[in-house]
Amino acid sequence: MSLIVDLNCDMGESFGAPSSPTDAALMKYITSANVACGFHSGDFSVMQQTVLLAIKNNVAIGAHPSLPDLQGFGRRTMAVTVNEVYEMMLYQMGALQAFTKANHARLHHVKPHGALYNMAAKDLKLADAIVDAIIAFDSTLILYGLAGSAMIQSARSKKLKYSEEVFADRTYQSDGSLTPRSQKSALIENTNDALSQVLRMMEEKKVTTLQGEDIAIEPGTICIHGDGAHAVEFAQAIHTSLKNAGIKLAAPLL
Amino acid sequence: MSLIVDLNCDMGESFGAPSSPTDAALMKYITSANVACGFHSGDFSVMQQTVLLAIKNNVAIGAHPSLPDLQGFGRRTMAVTVNEVYEMMLYQMGALQAFTKANHARLHHVKPHGALYNMAAKDLKLADAIVDAIIAFDSTLILYGLAGSAMIQSARSKKLKYSEEVFADRTYQSDGSLTPRSQKSALIENTNDALSQVLRMMEEKKVTTLQGEDIAIEPGTICIHGDGAHAVEFAQAIHTSLKNAGIKLAAPLL
Amino acid sequence: MSLIVDLNCDMGESFGAPSSPTDAALMKYITSANVACGFHSGDFSVMQQTVLLAIKNNVAIGAHPSLPDLQGFGRRTMAVTVNEVYEMMLYQMGALQAFTKANHARLHHVKPHGALYNMAAKDLKLADAIVDAIIAFDSTLILYGLAGSAMIQSARSKKLKYSEEVFADRTYQSDGSLTPRSQKSALIENTNDALSQVLRMMEEKKVTTLQGEDIAIEPGTICIHGDGAHAVEFAQAIHTSLKNAGIKLAAPLL
Amino acid sequence: MSLIVDLNCDMGESFGAPSSPTDAALMKYITSANVACGFHSGDFSVMQQTVLLAIKNNVAIGAHPSLPDLQGFGRRTMAVTVNEVYEMMLYQMGALQAFTKANHARLHHVKPHGALYNMAAKDLKLADAIVDAIIAFDSTLILYGLAGSAMIQSARSKKLKYSEEVFADRTYQSDGSLTPRSQKSALIENTNDALSQVLRMMEEKKVTTLQGEDIAIEPGTICIHGDGAHAVEFAQAIHTSLKNAGIKLAAPLL
Repeated sequence: MSLIVDLNCDMGESFGAPSSPTDAALMKYITSANVACGFHSGDFSVMQQTVLLAIKNNVAIGAHPSLPDLQGFGRRTMAVTVNEVYEMMLYQMGALQAFTKANHARLHHVKPHGALYNMAAKDLKLADAIVDAIIAFDSTLILYGLAGSAMIQSARSKKLKYSEEVFADRTYQSDGSLTPRSQKSALIENTNDALSQVLRMMEEKKVTTLQGEDIAIEPGTICIHGDGAHAVEFAQAIHTSLKNAGIKLAAPLL
Repeated sequence: MSLIVDLNCDMGESFGAPSSPTDAALMKYITSANVACGFHSGDFSVMQQTVLLAIKNNVAIGAHPSLPDLQGFGRRTMAVTVNEVYEMMLYQMGALQAFTKANHARLHHVKPHGALYNMAAKDLKLADAIVDAIIAFDSTLILYGLAGSAMIQSARSKKLKYSEEVFADRTYQSDGSLTPRSQKSALIENTNDALSQVLRMMEEKKVTTLQGEDIAIEPGTICIHGDGAHAVEFAQAIHTSLKNAGIKLAAPLL
Repeated sequence: MSLIVDLNCDMGESFGAPSSPTDAALMKYITSANVACGFHSGDFSVMQQTVLLAIKNNVAIGAHPSLPDLQGFGRRTMAVTVNEVYEMMLYQMGALQAFTKANHARLHHVKPHGALYNMAAKDLKLADAIVDAIIAFDSTLILYGLAGSAMIQSARSKKLKYSEEVFADRTYQSDGSLTPRSQKSALIENTNDALSQVLRMMEEKKVTTLQGEDIAIEPGTICIHGDGAHAVEFAQAIHTSLKNAGIKLAAPLL
Repeated sequence: MSLIVDLNCDMGESFGAPSSPTDAALMKYITSANVACGFHSGDFSVMQQTVLLAIKNNVAIGAHPSLPDLQGFGRRTMAVTVNEVYEMMLYQMGALQAFTKANHARLHHVKPHGALYNMAAKDLKLADAIVDAIIAFDSTLILYGLAGSAMIQSARSKKLKYSEEVFADRTYQSDGSLTPRSQKSALIENTNDALSQVLRMMEEKKVTTLQGEDIAIEPGTICIHGDGAHAVEFAQAIHTSLKNAGIKLAAPLL
């Protein structure tokens, strides 16, 4: 059986401004686009452009819902209730789905953004609210969540399809969590090291933590960051590296 | 054939605040609720509450999309392009539909709000953008628009279902438009006069304009204002008055 | 020496909607108005109306800055940095001061709103950011903060004038904090009990905690809630009760 | 008497995102920065960064207030009342002034943004609302407005200091207005042509309109666009070209 993995990237993250030209360049190398839905970025005009761009590049379209925090780009933890999370998920998934419907495409997956992603990775009640909202809205959608996190646990127990997300350029802790960005060694700056980490995850289902031990990991989708100075080059490098290793790139099947 | 008409009212028009207690009282007398979608008012929590309230009262649920103008309550004309109108319609209809889906109900109609309603009543290109968005999103929905306006004209020519909206408490001009609120005699303050105007519209298909002549009018839905001091009393009065005249109250059939 | 105290109330808490009619009624009984600055509520039109209303009623005008959370009415804890708090304080104080300047009045005090108030009551670093912003902006302003809290401690150590705030209708814990609203006995529902608590605070400088012991308290300003069903009646009752007890009502001197 | 002119540029136009790196590069060539105040762009963190950057570069700091239209970047005409314009001006000037005060600098000028600028260039009532707001807020500030427009007329009649703004890279109509961007020949794409137009404005006080005739123009400040691909190169070119022609670059005196 040949290996297969998805390459996902956040897209359409501008508000009141034209869509970033980087988005068009990145679309060539990815298989899933997570489209901002207006709460951390991404207004209705950018959403339409981004959906059209994804369709043109044959990239799977996902909702990228956030806490309601445009000023903070959805990156700040907020004390939201489970009801609020359920409701904000519905609002944003619905808003994006209107664009896929109108353009004869379909919504494929949901990846919570920023602080919401991180909060729900650890808090099973928030994870359940997210999973409940997806099921109530469209139970065929696929949840993208941090590998081994509460989001994956919730999806599994509620029978929602999921894809476990791994990171090429982030280091891992013994418990499978990402090293927080506030710590020095959170990022893998060297491209070759990042590529090696991903290839080993794919081929050996293992990753070496910052503490030096190996832990098991099952990559379903690899996150590409779209906002660095060398984002396009890195996307191309990881795309090529995976292909050269005989790994097929494709979005998870619905 | 017995007469039939719809009574519609704008609902869920609070943002960052609990839903208005008046909404619950009004739901008893209306047959269609136009639910604010976040652009002039109505956040995701209020939308969920309002959809649940409509379902409980067996009231048809419609989207009430607006120009993106929370500070101006969607009441200010803005120089938006037809593309922007198309896109903001999609966004808001989609957002609301997520709540009807999640609650096992269905979206029934769309009534543009405030300045968007008034602009599209006169500007066929904007009306076409609205109608195109509805058709692209869900071609079974019903458009509520000012009787005889460009919105109705557009819906008719594009084969979208529509319901012509009339106003109990507003005076009419010879061309079928409403007397602008900036003019003195725009409002019919006396409840009996308002009821008489509505009954004559229903029974004779006519309304007397401010200029004194009769013009033809075909009421499909009657707008009830939910924000005055006596909104509930007036809703009850018009509900009773129509029933007593043997007129059936029901939302338009999908 | 006669006793003196301030009665403060949050004002101008509507956005994209007319200022609440309750505000005008409450202004008669209070000596300080805390005016929303646009982040949890209060747009530029409501701010202008509210400042004019305060001037007309000879009520001291204060800024009521919030976390940037319009949808959550500023009530949700957010993981903001001390720099962000410093900057959002500046923005909102400045915005309000433009209205006092233009209307030949002056800004008198600053009372953080909602979650920001509660966070800074406990977190000295956030309290310092608030106090630093006030001093950098206008060091003559008076900070209103929870009696005995980190905000008061910060103001004292940085030589900023302050007024210790007490609550008539909230119960206290042994450490001087308010019983959280999530607990059953957080509110004093009985008006007479609330009035008694306030009078005892004024006359004996003591309050009985929920645990039954007396703790010291030094009321500089009493918070009146403006949003309950009986807000105006309660404001009038506390106003009358304090006056009858020979206590002078006045805003703190600049 | 030697010639003198100001070079101004819009700055701090990002929201929920880091300040643009282009801003820092442009600051070296300009004498006035128009700082976005949160309504079309520019949140409190970006405002603080931008004010510090301007201070470091010894650039005069102005407010760049807008219509409340974050999604439309303040570029859409809106039907706002004169009261609303007056109030939104106060709010935004106040917000920015807090940052200049806290950083021991001072606010120097006000340049309305986008649609507000264009509307007030033609509509004397809106221009008066802008000028009234500036005078009520701080009558020592300088208004930057389109040369020969209603804004300049209003400032002159109300004795507010002003600086007439000209454009290097835009063509002019016979009535002194700019050729609308919707027309083909609105922009002067060739850098040398743009430099020639500016030099002739400075030295001869004339500009050749698109219709071929010369009209009088009195440049007080020249607008540099900060958002094109070659913005920094153009800023440097115009800076150098003016200096080489013996023209002094300086912000207008307060």
